[in-house]
Amino acid sequence: MEQKILLDEGSGGRASQRLINTIFLNAFDNSILARMDDAAALPQIDGPMAMSTDSYTVSPLFFPGASIGSLAVNGTVNDVSMLGAKPLYITCGFILEEGLPLATLQRVVEDMVTAAAESGVKIVTGDTKVVPSGACDKMFINTTGLGQIFMNPAPSGHAARPGDAVLVSGAVGDHGIAVFTARENLSFASSVKSDCAPLADLVAKVASAAPTVHVLRDPTRGGLATTLNEIAEQSGICVELNEESLPVHAEVADACSFLGLDPLYLANEGKCICILPAEYADAVLQAMRAHPRGREAAIIGRVTDAQPGKVILHTAIGGSRFLGMLEGAQLPRIC
Amino acid sequence: MEQKILLDEGSGGRASQRLINTIFLNAFDNSILARMDDAAALPQIDGPMAMSTDSYTVSPLFFPGASIGSLAVNGTVNDVSMLGAKPLYITCGFILEEGLPLATLQRVVEDMVTAAAESGVKIVTGDTKVVPSGACDKMFINTTGLGQIFMNPAPSGHAARPGDAVLVSGAVGDHGIAVFTARENLSFASSVKSDCAPLADLVAKVASAAPTVHVLRDPTRGGLATTLNEIAEQSGICVELNEESLPVHAEVADACSFLGLDPLYLANEGKCICILPAEYADAVLQAMRAHPRGREAAIIGRVTDAQPGKVILHTAIGGSRFLGMLEGAQLPRIC
Repeated sequence: MEQKILLDEGSGGRASQRLINTIFLNAFDNSILARMDDAAALPQIDGPMAMSTDSYTVSPLFFPGASIGSLAVNGTVNDVSMLGAKPLYITCGFILEEGLPLATLQRVVEDMVTAAAESGVKIVTGDTKVVPSGACDKMFINTTGLGQIFMNPAPSGHAARPGDAVLVSGAVGDHGIAVFTARENLSFASSVKSDCAPLADLVAKVASAAPTVHVLRDPTRGGLATTLNEIAEQSGICVELNEESLPVHAEVADACSFLGLDPLYLANEGKCICILPAEYADAVLQAMRAHPRGREAAIIGRVTDAQPGKVILHTAIGGSRFLGMLEGAQLPRIC
Repeated sequence: MEQKILLDEGSGGRASQRLINTIFLNAFDNSILARMDDAAALPQIDGPMAMSTDSYTVSPLFFPGASIGSLAVNGTVNDVSMLGAKPLYITCGFILEEGLPLATLQRVVEDMVTAAAESGVKIVTGDTKVVPSGACDKMFINTTGLGQIFMNPAPSGHAARPGDAVLVSGAVGDHGIAVFTARENLSFASSVKSDCAPLADLVAKVASAAPTVHVLRDPTRGGLATTLNEIAEQSGICVELNEESLPVHAEVADACSFLGLDPLYLANEGKCICILPAEYADAVLQAMRAHPRGREAAIIGRVTDAQPGKVILHTAIGGSRFLGMLEGAQLPRIC
């Protein structure tokens, strides 16, 4: 008989303890977590720290290339990395729907373990709530990450300057298409995999290749276009992109044109935007391309003072248009 | 017309930005949050740190004495405090159901602001997801707290020793009864209020009154009995309680006997258990009673080696019985 999650397993009593011991403690095995006090005791981190939180509500829970588990680790680890920080610790909070198959939770936890190992982060404390059937859709996960900032000054969306080059570490739109096609059972783009991956190591290589990096951002919800608009607003500068240089996989482009989606607004979960003085652009491009997570990196544009707060796309046929921030979502529950 | 939360407001686009600016940034106003980068940049914390996470799924969202908002701040701040730490920063992740009245979110956020101010913690980064109607029940909140450990050695559930005294900072069971009666619209215990409150200041007073504190724990889910069982197991000791000394408000005791509940297993959200060498018990009791959050503090028992891993209750009529850990929950969705 298939084992299912019971309300009692979120009660704080013996049943909770058993779930925590059998599923979480064994898998996330480390001495900090094993203390099982009300909070994790962490050693001092020298210097400034980066802290980031995200809740994951992606549907379906599993999709080509990743799952809510790998996403919950990599997504938060990447947000920490974007501040020029080395991710060290993450917390995880599960909200489980009564009746969820235990095997589903186990698969998710395995993916978290694999992702945490790849980034070298420890899952140091957690929380499990079980809500009655119907009060949540299967499973939500929150993770909060803490890291040590090693870049000085730390990159920030406020730090882009005219004259900077704009790079992206690889092709955009894969994650959005992978989740959407899995959710809707579409066959025509079924070979597109989520790009879900940790960026900490790639960021370390970028930092070694350039003495200063102005902005690092991972274009998740809202995609490349929305993230660049945020940076343009925060820094009060204009981002000018060359359409021809934007890396998009052919199958993603095809799926987008069929579905009426724009890959520049689709979520990515293993890509970063890097904005830095143009003189260092080639060195960083080479460093990215030498890394397995950055082989398709490209210089996609430059920062100017043409239209402060705006993003301009120079199209392949010689036109130019504003690339706005979308009002809402192309696709809900993508992360 | 009543404004409601829209799916678009969780998209990462312009609608998300508007929600964040109007509801969160104004309310949680601080310079770290205002940077709005992928992660919050925090200054170095000297010495070891305490980090804790909790997801809050309490139903109903508002109940006598508190709401999911005050609970989400105080609950996490208290877990950080229990490690002998001063809470400094918290993150918050919202999962909102499409259609939630905006006014409901605003009331919750106001309660978070009030609670954060009382503890002196800053809400430094956050995340907002909106899921389609039916995919979650109104609103869930995750908070993760970070604090600076000032007690040396830090208290731990592993550190109770035979000869220690066991104290509780006030009457138990109020939170459980307050949430349950609000959810079920019961009139007979309607004056019972949740004890939801921050414990950081009380913990500082305890630390000043005794040179060493072995254990601090807040008896939330599972109540006093379950938390003491955890400590008995972790420390390999026996906790012996005197029933007569256990503080329980008369109205809570009445409601429990009517409903068939046991106040020792009901959640508390503003109480702590303190276990320390008996010689310091009176000084800590006085310090607790001198504090507005500890006026009903009591010495409720002692640590022995009679039955390692067990909790024994010595009843008012001279009997003794094991006080076990419940298998499951008396009440679901209590926090």
